[in-house]
Amino acid sequence: MSQNIVVQNIPRVAREMVEGLAECGVATVHEAQGRKGLLAEYMRPIYGDVAVGGNAITISGAPGDNWMMHVAIEQAQAGDILVFAPTSPCNDGYFGDLLATSAQARGVVGLIIDAGVRDTRDLKKMGFPVWSKCVYAQGTVKETLGSVNVPIVCANQLVNAGDVVIADDDGVVVVRHADAESVLAEARARVEREEAKRVRLANGELGLDIYNMRPRLEEKGLKYV
Amino acid sequence: MSQNIVVQNIPRVAREMVEGLAECGVATVHEAQGRKGLLAEYMRPIYGDVAVGGNAITISGAPGDNWMMHVAIEQAQAGDILVFAPTSPCNDGYFGDLLATSAQARGVVGLIIDAGVRDTRDLKKMGFPVWSKCVYAQGTVKETLGSVNVPIVCANQLVNAGDVVIADDDGVVVVRHADAESVLAEARARVEREEAKRVRLANGELGLDIYNMRPRLEEKGLKYV
Amino acid sequence: MSQNIVVQNIPRVAREMVEGLAECGVATVHEAQGRKGLLAEYMRPIYGDVAVGGNAITISGAPGDNWMMHVAIEQAQAGDILVFAPTSPCNDGYFGDLLATSAQARGVVGLIIDAGVRDTRDLKKMGFPVWSKCVYAQGTVKETLGSVNVPIVCANQLVNAGDVVIADDDGVVVVRHADAESVLAEARARVEREEAKRVRLANGELGLDIYNMRPRLEEKGLKYV
Amino acid sequence: MSQNIVVQNIPRVAREMVEGLAECGVATVHEAQGRKGLLAEYMRPIYGDVAVGGNAITISGAPGDNWMMHVAIEQAQAGDILVFAPTSPCNDGYFGDLLATSAQARGVVGLIIDAGVRDTRDLKKMGFPVWSKCVYAQGTVKETLGSVNVPIVCANQLVNAGDVVIADDDGVVVVRHADAESVLAEARARVEREEAKRVRLANGELGLDIYNMRPRLEEKGLKYV
Amino acid sequence: MSQNIVVQNIPRVAREMVEGLAECGVATVHEAQGRKGLLAEYMRPIYGDVAVGGNAITISGAPGDNWMMHVAIEQAQAGDILVFAPTSPCNDGYFGDLLATSAQARGVVGLIIDAGVRDTRDLKKMGFPVWSKCVYAQGTVKETLGSVNVPIVCANQLVNAGDVVIADDDGVVVVRHADAESVLAEARARVEREEAKRVRLANGELGLDIYNMRPRLEEKGLKYV
Amino acid sequence: MSQNIVVQNIPRVAREMVEGLAECGVATVHEAQGRKGLLAEYMRPIYGDVAVGGNAITISGAPGDNWMMHVAIEQAQAGDILVFAPTSPCNDGYFGDLLATSAQARGVVGLIIDAGVRDTRDLKKMGFPVWSKCVYAQGTVKETLGSVNVPIVCANQLVNAGDVVIADDDGVVVVRHADAESVLAEARARVEREEAKRVRLANGELGLDIYNMRPRLEEKGLKYV
Repeated sequence: MSQNIVVQNIPRVAREMVEGLAECGVATVHEAQGRKGLLAEYMRPIYGDVAVGGNAITISGAPGDNWMMHVAIEQAQAGDILVFAPTSPCNDGYFGDLLATSAQARGVVGLIIDAGVRDTRDLKKMGFPVWSKCVYAQGTVKETLGSVNVPIVCANQLVNAGDVVIADDDGVVVVRHADAESVLAEARARVEREEAKRVRLANGELGLDIYNMRPRLEEKGLKYV
Repeated sequence: MSQNIVVQNIPRVAREMVEGLAECGVATVHEAQGRKGLLAEYMRPIYGDVAVGGNAITISGAPGDNWMMHVAIEQAQAGDILVFAPTSPCNDGYFGDLLATSAQARGVVGLIIDAGVRDTRDLKKMGFPVWSKCVYAQGTVKETLGSVNVPIVCANQLVNAGDVVIADDDGVVVVRHADAESVLAEARARVEREEAKRVRLANGELGLDIYNMRPRLEEKGLKYV
Repeated sequence: MSQNIVVQNIPRVAREMVEGLAECGVATVHEAQGRKGLLAEYMRPIYGDVAVGGNAITISGAPGDNWMMHVAIEQAQAGDILVFAPTSPCNDGYFGDLLATSAQARGVVGLIIDAGVRDTRDLKKMGFPVWSKCVYAQGTVKETLGSVNVPIVCANQLVNAGDVVIADDDGVVVVRHADAESVLAEARARVEREEAKRVRLANGELGLDIYNMRPRLEEKGLKYV
Repeated sequence: MSQNIVVQNIPRVAREMVEGLAECGVATVHEAQGRKGLLAEYMRPIYGDVAVGGNAITISGAPGDNWMMHVAIEQAQAGDILVFAPTSPCNDGYFGDLLATSAQARGVVGLIIDAGVRDTRDLKKMGFPVWSKCVYAQGTVKETLGSVNVPIVCANQLVNAGDVVIADDDGVVVVRHADAESVLAEARARVEREEAKRVRLANGELGLDIYNMRPRLEEKGLKYV
Repeated sequence: MSQNIVVQNIPRVAREMVEGLAECGVATVHEAQGRKGLLAEYMRPIYGDVAVGGNAITISGAPGDNWMMHVAIEQAQAGDILVFAPTSPCNDGYFGDLLATSAQARGVVGLIIDAGVRDTRDLKKMGFPVWSKCVYAQGTVKETLGSVNVPIVCANQLVNAGDVVIADDDGVVVVRHADAESVLAEARARVEREEAKRVRLANGELGLDIYNMRPRLEEKGLKYV
Repeated sequence: MSQNIVVQNIPRVAREMVEGLAECGVATVHEAQGRKGLLAEYMRPIYGDVAVGGNAITISGAPGDNWMMHVAIEQAQAGDILVFAPTSPCNDGYFGDLLATSAQARGVVGLIIDAGVRDTRDLKKMGFPVWSKCVYAQGTVKETLGSVNVPIVCANQLVNAGDVVIADDDGVVVVRHADAESVLAEARARVEREEAKRVRLANGELGLDIYNMRPRLEEKGLKYV
């Protein structure tokens, strides 16, 4: 069984590629890979106007126990993002400004946590973004082992160590390590296609005409009265 | 039955009147019309410090299907506000920056949606406000017809095409088309009355005295110990 | 029974001590008193980047009835904080800009309410912070008596009149009147200890080493693979 | 405005027709009228194995105030069903065994309430079914007027006095008064069609074949591996 | 501070009195003591048609840790009821058939728990009722101390050791130890008064007449149309 | 990518083994495999007193689209259990009595669905158990492809085709195909150990003594007062 282990060597996607995906944004990346990979809608950023991407360091820990956070940070490299899921549902505040200081010192770009977070004002000042289920100051203990860099289910999505995780004001999306290159290509193509449409729409053309929707609407039976 | 139709001619309330109501604000307008018309408290703005009012373009669409958004935008005029309700509960992101660009090009002032929204950072930059049940990037399809400008129930309130919808940081309220003038008059009177009270309260007078509450409190049996 | 009474003389903690606790912040104070006293995680501030502390004026009122707010404000002194719990669950907007004007005129530093609040844009402009279950414009009546400065349960915590209540972006914590001094001492010691650790963590030292966690992790059976 | 009124003469659908719809059941009736009219999924019966239908007596009342229940019962006839919506969200227990005794004495078949109910053990013993948002013993007052037999929004659906309301273990659906006859015909036809299919499915035939789905699945690109 | 202690001598209310209150039922007892003491509406029984009352053994424990359950059972006597609140929100299954066997052997009548429970089929067979926030099989550990028979807040109500707790299909209500006798008297009087009304209502008399509501409704302005 | 495919050959665990696990029950199996594999606590059975186990036929489908249910049933054998997850959150009623008739004809033992179900009275009569997020009659379409027997995340747990899924009144747990034998052995051992303890507890021995907890409680500092 994959319990109480730390996997030390994980695959990573090149930093330019991860940043490219982050620039495309969560909604576009989600579309580019066939509308999959979105974490649950309750995962919200603690502050707005933010977008990051990283190689996932996955963390599985007990409810109310943040010991594995410390273990995980040692495994992280610059450009990584921490992704935590508790083994049973929990709102406690697993992560605050000290852990963020440590993570940021190693180049970690942010945290995705299906639980609570605290010291949010400090995290905002530091520029360390977090997407969480809630904000809650409840303290945690360091008693029970968990695992680092094993597959986890976080907010209803499977995340493997080394998958790319993109997060912005719209939420969080995971891209499989093996799909990163093709998804980036499709996402960039999509951004380009959208840019052209945006100009036409801004000029007052209608989606009904740009996408040639009228015949199909009529065929399906839409009535104008 | 009123299914799969687009009603093209709807009544509208004069722009000054709508703006007058928006200036009074959601709480005041709600009070002015007898404490009714508030949409559910889960309808929250995607960014703060905002207040708009518009004539409602109502949209009824299938879960996970945003086709009718395109149809609705053609029906909109400057000063209108889109109001969308899915035919069964859905959190998907029906609306993003492209639709917003199109809507804004026609003068639409915002969107009220009992479902999800995405591209929220772009929407904020564009100054296109949205009140929604959630933020969620999940994409939608364009397969199933719905209706535009029929009566809908959005977030537990009935909204008719041409009703006035006011939205600000406090939420969303609907004013019947026929009531707009009288509600505006009462709302403005209320604002004026409140202004006078605000000055007295700011000077340290108590509501207990301004509203002469002490005798009634005593009569009801309040005890000071 | 403690119903329909207003307790006029309540103990208060010295203002410097309350402000000291507020500076330490919710998470630290909660830790310093043994991880207790946190109100439920659904209590959120209406605007961010804020931290206050006050002596609690407790208010128990009927659902949808804000009469006791007026009664409570008369009992408040500079440095107090209002803490309201309805006698059955309610989301209505008990408190808006007029009550805030009155409270602020008496030096009240904020409101904690296990219900709704409205006029939130005005409250933000005034700098009157509120932590609430929701934002909702629904109006309330003034028909039913309640009590002021009796023990209440607010968002799953017991709060007594004169307890110290600290609130910031992380939520709300209550400190018993009798514990304020010792909790402040421990909170300040904790802040100091954390400061030293923050420097080391920022320099790249790991929590694993600073806290000497490696031997215990090994003993518990953590495997590196 | 339609506030604080009791409409005494309402249209009713013939009892046989209402009972015919109840026999078809909520899911079938909902399908038969084009997949509309379902109340929110949180509306659950207080006990199972039950199915009723009635002509709606609609009730709009203040939060925490059940005065209008008494007013409504006088308006009810045998075969009616009470449908209550509070003017702001509320979980209080508006209805218990005494009101049920009174309603049952007049031939009322049940209650639909977007709020709480109590005395549920007694109601079950009496055979008086209720669909509610929750079970909660919290008592209510009799202080504020509301209306009876005006249009209301209950659990996100518009209900008019005299509409037919069908409720069973699956939830609650409303059928417009004017649609009852045609919906019943379609529902019965649907029941019949389903019966034939049920026999074939029970014999092991597949829906894939009965509905001839294979060609369309292949055309859309489904791959068997 | 009251942490990590077990209070061994607690006051108890005579068994006849507790059973008298249980017979009156949660709704009636709640009314009889002035509409207070109800635990949150999410506290539901794991099976129906049940009513119990007991002297409260209160238990405060860590999230995901049921060690104190064992400690508490030793403190229980015949006729007691266990009341558990976690120190931070938790859905884990703290209690199953083994603990129930032990508790039942000592005469404990049931469990109230603001968390999860498991082995619910066995508990039903044993006739050991539980009111809980949820049913969830998630296991717990035995690592962290808590306290027994200290005041706790359970599902938003303060409960002291030795208070009387009554639970039935409608939920859970707490009666202060000192109030038990007077509340029982009032509850019984109420039951008697209601019995008389029930007969009249069953005979078709209206609440409007029995309670003489018509003049007040008219005075408040109710219009019949 | 693994989209729009039907995997026809899946591993299965021998029926005796699956039934052995079902007899042990969800709580015991969850413990026996190291407290993992539990689906979210919101997954509830539509009727009680039920326990089943099956080899998982996994189904991934679009929100509001139950087409893949028909495809999946063809893949099922006697002793299988259907496990459905929508690609975005949905409460619609994907499954009713006709699909159940078809599934039951092939020997399917039940359905686990992270969405809604309908015709629940009929399902109960048929003895076809379902664990779902909610009961909701909302109809679905047959427009969009999905996949059968690919890995899915259902209610926050990864489920592979051919994993064993056990469900009873306590909820749902998944056991990896490869772990079934060892988990069954451990679960049976656990049942046996518990039986012995149950007898001692029923005789009035305390867990404190059976598990020798007293020394460790004392060492940790528990105080009896």
